[in-house]
Amino acid sequence: MLSRECGIISVMLNFEIHSEEGGARTGLLRMSRGNVHTPAFMPVGTNATVKAMTPEELMDMGAEIILGNTYHLSLRPGIEVIRAAGGLHRFMNWDRPILTDSGGFQVYSLSALRRIEPHGVHFKSHVDGSMHFIGPDEAMEIQSALGSDIAMVFDDCTPYPAEFEYALNSLQLTLAWARRCRELQKEDQALFGIVQGSAYKELRTMSIGGLLDIGFDGYAVGGLSVGEPKEVMHEMIRFVGPLLPRDKPRYLMGIGDLMDVLVAVDSGFDMFDCVMPTRNARNGTLFTSLGRVSIKRTEYKADARPLDPECGCYTCRHYSRAYLRHMFLTKEILSMRLNTFHNLFFYMTFFRNMREAIGRGEFQAFKKKREAMIGTEELQE
Amino acid sequence: MLSRECGIISVMLNFEIHSEEGGARTGLLRMSRGNVHTPAFMPVGTNATVKAMTPEELMDMGAEIILGNTYHLSLRPGIEVIRAAGGLHRFMNWDRPILTDSGGFQVYSLSALRRIEPHGVHFKSHVDGSMHFIGPDEAMEIQSALGSDIAMVFDDCTPYPAEFEYALNSLQLTLAWARRCRELQKEDQALFGIVQGSAYKELRTMSIGGLLDIGFDGYAVGGLSVGEPKEVMHEMIRFVGPLLPRDKPRYLMGIGDLMDVLVAVDSGFDMFDCVMPTRNARNGTLFTSLGRVSIKRTEYKADARPLDPECGCYTCRHYSRAYLRHMFLTKEILSMRLNTFHNLFFYMTFFRNMREAIGRGEFQAFKKKREAMIGTEELQE
Repeated sequence: MLSRECGIISVMLNFEIHSEEGGARTGLLRMSRGNVHTPAFMPVGTNATVKAMTPEELMDMGAEIILGNTYHLSLRPGIEVIRAAGGLHRFMNWDRPILTDSGGFQVYSLSALRRIEPHGVHFKSHVDGSMHFIGPDEAMEIQSALGSDIAMVFDDCTPYPAEFEYALNSLQLTLAWARRCRELQKEDQALFGIVQGSAYKELRTMSIGGLLDIGFDGYAVGGLSVGEPKEVMHEMIRFVGPLLPRDKPRYLMGIGDLMDVLVAVDSGFDMFDCVMPTRNARNGTLFTSLGRVSIKRTEYKADARPLDPECGCYTCRHYSRAYLRHMFLTKEILSMRLNTFHNLFFYMTFFRNMREAIGRGEFQAFKKKREAMIGTEELQE
Repeated sequence: MLSRECGIISVMLNFEIHSEEGGARTGLLRMSRGNVHTPAFMPVGTNATVKAMTPEELMDMGAEIILGNTYHLSLRPGIEVIRAAGGLHRFMNWDRPILTDSGGFQVYSLSALRRIEPHGVHFKSHVDGSMHFIGPDEAMEIQSALGSDIAMVFDDCTPYPAEFEYALNSLQLTLAWARRCRELQKEDQALFGIVQGSAYKELRTMSIGGLLDIGFDGYAVGGLSVGEPKEVMHEMIRFVGPLLPRDKPRYLMGIGDLMDVLVAVDSGFDMFDCVMPTRNARNGTLFTSLGRVSIKRTEYKADARPLDPECGCYTCRHYSRAYLRHMFLTKEILSMRLNTFHNLFFYMTFFRNMREAIGRGEFQAFKKKREAMIGTEELQE
């Protein structure tokens, strides 16, 4: 097993690679608020809460870092409220690391109206229809007020499909904004660049080159999972991963389907976030060692067995499938809690097992086994 | 301080009075699944869950007994499901005592259509509009399948206002059903009778007489808080309480406004249930040592103080008013959790303090102080 320092990247963030197997690697992100074992899954805490969970529950299941949303928090409760609280960590009672996105993706995906200008984007709030403006300056100011451990540059998320010319212009805007964000970076906050370039390999390469010229604490890949076919997404993941600096953390934004995660880890990615486990939980779709379970199905009506006999989570230790089905059908809040806890626990366990497999040099076997399982399951649905 | 046995009432239930001050008393209900200190507040677990809480959280805040709803559980998930799970305790992962109501009140208050017959009530489910029938036989069978520690007789809840003649007939039906329930009582389950009689003192007296002739493990008062003025409710509470046998637990059904609770404890009542703390929590109305707080109000927008500086609950130890307001306005599940935990903790603390005050012979002072506080607060609203 390898274990060597890759050098101090910033005051805030230090990344060590512990083991490698092909492109896949395990590592440790050291930050002042705590360490993060990679490959890491970051539960999404959009509105200053990982939906249905307390911080203690997240720690119980082994979450070492969570994600916060600049776009949502700047609209509600507003930055002044969080500043008055002493930052996002204190506001939401989470003292481990937080990564904040820059709002670029939400401006693209959530706002009803969007006008892009050289210095940022005018957009209409999805909450109350009011007009707002975010550009690199605003995104950095908001993330500084939030006090996140890792900030993201403000980027223009290129829609799919996009003409080459459009994608090129969008990418150049993202690079200009990335440079501006880097100028505004504070000493106590790490900053990651975001690779764009749509499905054009030459643009992805150009994007990486531009970001490397600027220099960041880590590199993220955006503009995927925006409507492109899975093969295109996987091709881009496999193409971009190895081009990113080996000694810096690599973050694949917004992608958390475990089939995609396996491809991305194989391509050298270290960090992931996705609403899939939490959103599916609230919709009654549960991940188990035997495949996905739709808990509302009649077959579980009187099923006294735990959801997943192989799972050691609170939900599986204390409740039956019949109870989980009843909670879901009666729309009880406990349904959201028990389902969310289970799904996040499943993800955390998946990532821990994956790290251990890489450490033992058995990632390829792990990947094959999981792909076979996930493949079967998708046929069943 | 008094402390004496009042004799074994049934295999399942034993009640000791520990101290008395005027009509108020403290006591201990002993049951095979655990002891309950009285006066006791029973959180309401309608659908086999106290909304938003886990059993561990209920135990943390000192809940010794909860209430389950026969009407709701018989419609969803259905008795066969709970029977297959080994009873309600195992189904919902709560191993302390459970009291189940008989469905009488819900048939009265929730069902769209109700046809009363000598052997029970035909009613339309509020869930799917299907027709059902519950009478004393069905109520006892359901409660036996649920396996509650204390069952309630099936009663006809008299609407308010009611003509004397109507109230008399309704009461006689309740007495006939009470007798039938007593015949069907199983050895392993305590059974409480229910006093009806609307706002007629002579009918309340007749009801008590009829129930005493049959003999129950405890006596409950129903048919209050159904639209009558507060003064009428308090008059009935003060009238009925002292007429109930001193050595048996006295349960005032469905009433949990703390002003009413103080009157009822003063009149000798020992057990209470109410959705007020949990429902108010979900609506953003929080109980504090300084009065009620509507957490959505703008004045709390950037308020970094805990909800109640005198409260030691999880919510008050970890979160600010600003955070609670933000959670409420964004409709986050954590809002329901934190608010519910706080309100139930407030109720549990209120009841514990009240028991201690009675134990010290200071209940009247406690009552005066609380009434003054609650009175002020109502003026503020």
